[in-house]
Amino acid sequence: MPEYVLHNYFRSTTSLRVRVALNLKGLDYEYVSYALLDKDHKSAAYLKLNPQGLVPALEIKDAAVLTQSMAILEYLDEEHPEPPLLPRDALGRARVRALSQIIAVDIHPINNLRILQYLETEFGADGAAKKAWFQEWAHAGMAALETRLANEPETGKFCHGDSPTMADICLYAQMFNNERFDMDMDAYPTILEIYHQCGQMKAFKDAEPLQQPDAPNQ
Amino acid sequence: MPEYVLHNYFRSTTSLRVRVALNLKGLDYEYVSYALLDKDHKSAAYLKLNPQGLVPALEIKDAAVLTQSMAILEYLDEEHPEPPLLPRDALGRARVRALSQIIAVDIHPINNLRILQYLETEFGADGAAKKAWFQEWAHAGMAALETRLANEPETGKFCHGDSPTMADICLYAQMFNNERFDMDMDAYPTILEIYHQCGQMKAFKDAEPLQQPDAPNQ
Repeated sequence: MPEYVLHNYFRSTTSLRVRVALNLKGLDYEYVSYALLDKDHKSAAYLKLNPQGLVPALEIKDAAVLTQSMAILEYLDEEHPEPPLLPRDALGRARVRALSQIIAVDIHPINNLRILQYLETEFGADGAAKKAWFQEWAHAGMAALETRLANEPETGKFCHGDSPTMADICLYAQMFNNERFDMDMDAYPTILEIYHQCGQMKAFKDAEPLQQPDAPNQ
Repeated sequence: MPEYVLHNYFRSTTSLRVRVALNLKGLDYEYVSYALLDKDHKSAAYLKLNPQGLVPALEIKDAAVLTQSMAILEYLDEEHPEPPLLPRDALGRARVRALSQIIAVDIHPINNLRILQYLETEFGADGAAKKAWFQEWAHAGMAALETRLANEPETGKFCHGDSPTMADICLYAQMFNNERFDMDMDAYPTILEIYHQCGQMKAFKDAEPLQQPDAPNQ
């Protein structure tokens, strides 16, 4: 039996991040699915695991339940150092964490399901208004990320050098959201190249939403 | 001359976090202010430092510019390990990072100035609607945080044990926002106790908005 249980959902962006990290580290895990639209993640049983009622949570059997995808990535990298998700030098780590957080802090949380639902119910936002909202914050973050990736010498085949880090995991996961909201990515060639590079790796491909057991049949 | 230059704003919550960390580590820094309402942080000069156009940025003279407050905290903790902002054990670090991110990922970015401005211009949100928006996400996060802090044995005088960590820094900074938006905190006695505990320390007090050189006269 695997040591880890991942409580997650196929379409959840933050769940996708953790799946990529587990795959990169070669860690086996049990997959437990929570249908967000059915509010499975608000059940009493799940709230006991994670009082915040958000996926993902990574359960370490008989030990602990970890929450918050970025904290989980740091933990996995500390406990299973190879291959590393962060560079060896402190400035490099600061850069990778900052690039990650452009997405994980300043794009994704603002465009989460609960936010879009609130815009609809409280402000009467229709599909077009929700798409405009998504694109506003996603373009702001993607433009800053592209500027940095295109101009900073640390960028390689991936966001930082030639092997994937936390930043690539965030970038890759965000792209599935961008696609759902019809983001025009033409202005971001460096991001697209890195996305393509990630997509060559089985660890990333296997973590994609439609590869998961709870995804609808194609 | 100090090694660090903090590009920030007295009222910025994420700037406050970095000021506390610098103070706790006993690091001197030069203070450069950007009046957010005047869009100082969107100037060409600042965008060259930080293409994202958000404060804070921590400049290390002749070396690098660090962005994203949580990445900056991690950097400061790595380069200046005493006193530590994270516990020694991996599970403890995962807990502190997760508690931090409940605030830094799932409350603060959604309630930032740029978001509230968008709600006003695009959805006609008035003061009451913006307050309701703020409180929706702040209460969701604070309730989860209170549940964890009140029930998990790792909680001490501070969020994790008896000395301040990254999580206390996030909690303390968020309280100033909560106050501005009239959050009723009665349901969160553990959070209030920890906030009070932080307020006993000069490193926290000195970082408060109204103690900064760019704050309006009292």
